[in-house]
Amino acid sequence: MAVVVRNIERVAQELVDRLAAAGVATVHEAQGRTGMLASYMRPIYAGAQIAGSAVTISAPPGDNWMVHVAIEQLREGDILVLAPTSPCDNGYFGDLLATSAMARGARGLVIEAGVRDVRDLTAMKFPVWSKAVSAEGTVKETLGSVNVPIVCAGAYIEAGDVIVADDDGVCAVRRAEAGTVLAAAEKRLANEESKRRRLAAGELGLDIYDMRARLAEKGLKYV
Amino acid sequence: MAVVVRNIERVAQELVDRLAAAGVATVHEAQGRTGMLASYMRPIYAGAQIAGSAVTISAPPGDNWMVHVAIEQLREGDILVLAPTSPCDNGYFGDLLATSAMARGARGLVIEAGVRDVRDLTAMKFPVWSKAVSAEGTVKETLGSVNVPIVCAGAYIEAGDVIVADDDGVCAVRRAEAGTVLAAAEKRLANEESKRRRLAAGELGLDIYDMRARLAEKGLKYV
Amino acid sequence: MAVVVRNIERVAQELVDRLAAAGVATVHEAQGRTGMLASYMRPIYAGAQIAGSAVTISAPPGDNWMVHVAIEQLREGDILVLAPTSPCDNGYFGDLLATSAMARGARGLVIEAGVRDVRDLTAMKFPVWSKAVSAEGTVKETLGSVNVPIVCAGAYIEAGDVIVADDDGVCAVRRAEAGTVLAAAEKRLANEESKRRRLAAGELGLDIYDMRARLAEKGLKYV
Amino acid sequence: MAVVVRNIERVAQELVDRLAAAGVATVHEAQGRTGMLASYMRPIYAGAQIAGSAVTISAPPGDNWMVHVAIEQLREGDILVLAPTSPCDNGYFGDLLATSAMARGARGLVIEAGVRDVRDLTAMKFPVWSKAVSAEGTVKETLGSVNVPIVCAGAYIEAGDVIVADDDGVCAVRRAEAGTVLAAAEKRLANEESKRRRLAAGELGLDIYDMRARLAEKGLKYV
Amino acid sequence: MAVVVRNIERVAQELVDRLAAAGVATVHEAQGRTGMLASYMRPIYAGAQIAGSAVTISAPPGDNWMVHVAIEQLREGDILVLAPTSPCDNGYFGDLLATSAMARGARGLVIEAGVRDVRDLTAMKFPVWSKAVSAEGTVKETLGSVNVPIVCAGAYIEAGDVIVADDDGVCAVRRAEAGTVLAAAEKRLANEESKRRRLAAGELGLDIYDMRARLAEKGLKYV
Amino acid sequence: MAVVVRNIERVAQELVDRLAAAGVATVHEAQGRTGMLASYMRPIYAGAQIAGSAVTISAPPGDNWMVHVAIEQLREGDILVLAPTSPCDNGYFGDLLATSAMARGARGLVIEAGVRDVRDLTAMKFPVWSKAVSAEGTVKETLGSVNVPIVCAGAYIEAGDVIVADDDGVCAVRRAEAGTVLAAAEKRLANEESKRRRLAAGELGLDIYDMRARLAEKGLKYV
Repeated sequence: MAVVVRNIERVAQELVDRLAAAGVATVHEAQGRTGMLASYMRPIYAGAQIAGSAVTISAPPGDNWMVHVAIEQLREGDILVLAPTSPCDNGYFGDLLATSAMARGARGLVIEAGVRDVRDLTAMKFPVWSKAVSAEGTVKETLGSVNVPIVCAGAYIEAGDVIVADDDGVCAVRRAEAGTVLAAAEKRLANEESKRRRLAAGELGLDIYDMRARLAEKGLKYV
Repeated sequence: MAVVVRNIERVAQELVDRLAAAGVATVHEAQGRTGMLASYMRPIYAGAQIAGSAVTISAPPGDNWMVHVAIEQLREGDILVLAPTSPCDNGYFGDLLATSAMARGARGLVIEAGVRDVRDLTAMKFPVWSKAVSAEGTVKETLGSVNVPIVCAGAYIEAGDVIVADDDGVCAVRRAEAGTVLAAAEKRLANEESKRRRLAAGELGLDIYDMRARLAEKGLKYV
Repeated sequence: MAVVVRNIERVAQELVDRLAAAGVATVHEAQGRTGMLASYMRPIYAGAQIAGSAVTISAPPGDNWMVHVAIEQLREGDILVLAPTSPCDNGYFGDLLATSAMARGARGLVIEAGVRDVRDLTAMKFPVWSKAVSAEGTVKETLGSVNVPIVCAGAYIEAGDVIVADDDGVCAVRRAEAGTVLAAAEKRLANEESKRRRLAAGELGLDIYDMRARLAEKGLKYV
Repeated sequence: MAVVVRNIERVAQELVDRLAAAGVATVHEAQGRTGMLASYMRPIYAGAQIAGSAVTISAPPGDNWMVHVAIEQLREGDILVLAPTSPCDNGYFGDLLATSAMARGARGLVIEAGVRDVRDLTAMKFPVWSKAVSAEGTVKETLGSVNVPIVCAGAYIEAGDVIVADDDGVCAVRRAEAGTVLAAAEKRLANEESKRRRLAAGELGLDIYDMRARLAEKGLKYV
Repeated sequence: MAVVVRNIERVAQELVDRLAAAGVATVHEAQGRTGMLASYMRPIYAGAQIAGSAVTISAPPGDNWMVHVAIEQLREGDILVLAPTSPCDNGYFGDLLATSAMARGARGLVIEAGVRDVRDLTAMKFPVWSKAVSAEGTVKETLGSVNVPIVCAGAYIEAGDVIVADDDGVCAVRRAEAGTVLAAAEKRLANEESKRRRLAAGELGLDIYDMRARLAEKGLKYV
Repeated sequence: MAVVVRNIERVAQELVDRLAAAGVATVHEAQGRTGMLASYMRPIYAGAQIAGSAVTISAPPGDNWMVHVAIEQLREGDILVLAPTSPCDNGYFGDLLATSAMARGARGLVIEAGVRDVRDLTAMKFPVWSKAVSAEGTVKETLGSVNVPIVCAGAYIEAGDVIVADDDGVCAVRRAEAGTVLAAAEKRLANEESKRRRLAAGELGLDIYDMRARLAEKGLKYV
């Protein structure tokens, strides 16, 4: 049951980087409002905005052994994504593991559990989105798996899927759909810019999006 | 059932601004420890301290259509206050809506649900107090109401009530009581200053507030 | 039942300061992964790292009277630690009490309840780890106790125990064990430095910690 | 600030009893999907279905003094409704208070806090909907108010409003609207009976409610 | 994006029924401690123990339109499994839908949201495992999908997977693994019976499972 | 660090049984409103009311090995009390362990984690108070301790303390105080009986407890 999948396919880095630039909210809309991890996944510091290919970790509660195993599988541009097999807020990851992950090319960590040494991680600029911050440590006794499909914070993620993360949270994009989603996202961005100018000038969304007739039809009353 | 109340009464702006200056903790004490929204309403960035007249929104879960409707009702100095009709942490509001709301004079948003584009909102200095941060978007299918009485995060709020918000949370002041509350708040502030000096000099609250006799009478034992 | 214990034993300040320098995650590991308070205890601002001797407060829900009593018991280098007798997120503590506590030598507050005036406390550099931020005030009607053993956020704490707190949370060290724990912590720190260098150079934890044989023995498969 | 309103208006008992018979889900739909208290309000035992006029209590956290005051205001057919001024799960109410409330005509208790002696209350058939069960007791030190408007579990309730409660939760009906809501509720019940028979016979809601065309128009694809 | 998959493969009913008889805890162990839905999924009444083929529903928050669509896809022995696209505790399902689902062969409902009419559902013996009980209703405005893969309460589920549910919660078994899991489960049951007898006679697990040597080797001390 | 304390002192069984008869709410009041475990500790079935001497277990998250160790330490009349070293809702305990514990004299289990096989446990009449019900299993890899002091659900408990549990929750009584607490509890019970009769006859607590003057003095107004 405990396996490490070594050769996973990844999306081209240039495409991943453009998804990072689009940001979570735009990417999520661009793929039909799907892929968001639960809103309790919060960044340990504000301002980071990244994307990368998922190296997934399925780990037992309170046991971070597989993080060491996963780090060997990292390539430049990857993001570690850890889901415990049952709810746990222990600190699975700290500054030593971050040092190692950065040396192997990782751009960040998404973990539905706890993280620690957050002051050091912030200083190192290693971004983490987690469910908790906790210095409560873990053991290394029980196996898990690396690069198998996982459910992390309510989202189904396969190794090599693209993870986009910023201050709004974390969104997963299926590997095969990354190109299509990127195209839709960049189209949205272009479109938003013109709307932003009109709204800033005081025009109303009611008029720009032509909502008044449909509101009236549904029965909205002004009193 | 779905209505927009267009003409709401507001408190004079000068009074509202002085309530902002007093801050949430003082205003809340000044009105007899009432009016606080639940403590899960947190600012998206630290340091903002505002007050404004409430433009209220009652919206269905996962549907932000009425935000567009509400923005038309804004005047300079208002604050949008949104309560979903059932619990929801979707991101109802992002940078485009903020651009529009700012153009119409809004000072901020209080929302018992989610908000997104928080990095942009922070850069724009548009303060938001919310229950969640989430890029998970919404639809525009079902009506709600604007400027009707709502319960937001446990507090009953009518359109035109004064909302005071800072790093300590959000407090609502009934429109008719704003003057009385302001007077009490400013009196507290004056009073606090002298106490602060005495406490900073090492005097004890036990002595300043004359608590020792009453503690002894209640039975406190020193061992 | 309501008592104030006046003479408590404390650990030597120099030792306490070195525990502060070691930080929470290291201290927690050094004492065998024990002593952490629950991960919902969060700092009101990032970057503070302190240690001090606990002056404990057992207080009724919604009543901060005993905080005034406890402040008189403070000595230079102490930390106030408050546990309500039942769950409560009221703001027990604000800038006036902080002014008083600082004047009496306190280094910070750990409170399994709410705190307010967080903008002022941040400006004063008075660090607080709390379960909530809330402007909702308290009364002064019911007695509690000072310097009795308490359970705060799941940790058993006696007056004079050393409290270590930083961005990772809060850890309690039993007074009698402070010296032993410090020695173990400083040994870990020295040891970590060499590992950090090797990991930064790209060596793997799998090799540094010699994990491969044990992983294989437990049945980990690479595919 | 601490007041007891003695003469409150109530809805006629016969109308209240018919609302009880309609049940929570039907009443809630009949008044346009409004009035539900939060879903964490759960009955202490299954099977009770009641309605009554609200005698409201606003009480401090951890203080049940005002329950005694409220009991004097009860009349035959009333329901006690308690909201603490800040979140609290203490057991405010047990078998002695229930004995007293029953003797004065109360049909039940709705409390956004804790209740205790639930085995006795079950044996006495005194139904309670609460946020928690807790033997943790309260004090009698601080005043609150009786028969003032309150927000209980997210719903705004005035004294004399009709409270309907069953295994699905608790719904509040504004006093002035009780007649209209009852008419709509009883119409729904009649209507539901014929639908139930058709559905039981295997007819589909898709056909009974004529949904197929609208689903197709919105773009639903069968594959 | 909104699709209904009409022809799904199912596991043979006889096999499904034997999984029901094995129960959740045994099935979960038998498949290597995987497949459990989160522990907040609770039955509306005690004592039901079922299994069935999943007919999955992905529904918007606060919108139960797709439940009607899904009911048409039911066959004898199926279980409806609903996951909202974002967290929601509205009551999506009540006695009318249960009447319809039973008429089409459904054995129960698993829903990561709310359910209502629980007294009726209990009387009808239609078991439901849900995150909440709530009379708060829903609308029928936005499409979702039926028989697509979903994540429900943290578990990834495809249409036709076997759902096992009893008082211990809900477990999903991948369709292709149902036979293997059943064999392992039935082997466990046989094995447990002999252990139960020995334990009931006062023998210790320490001896039956031969744990003493390994405990000593790990360093357990008796004092 | 991993120890099993073999000889613990216990309170005389007759005294323990009388504490069981007094029940949780009375015992908790009798010892000055202390000792309650958090209100999320709920019985798996209604109606059990027990007391016993605590055999404590400190266990790692997701690891139930020490339960086997603890069972050997049980004597007639004991209650197992388990606290995980960090939050965990796994099912640590099921019908086989219950069979074994009953055979060794246990009266029940208090566990700040999960339990499973609740249908069997109910049929066996083995009462459990837990934080969760979950079939999610555990491993047997990491040591913990037995009969050391623990913090369980916010209460500090030493081996041999008396645990009282019923539908209202769980209360711990320090071993040395059991006699005093029992005396106070039985006095309360006698006293309550006469009050119950007076309240049932319609007398008011306001008069029986002579509250009117104090309410007036505090400023309560009747309007």
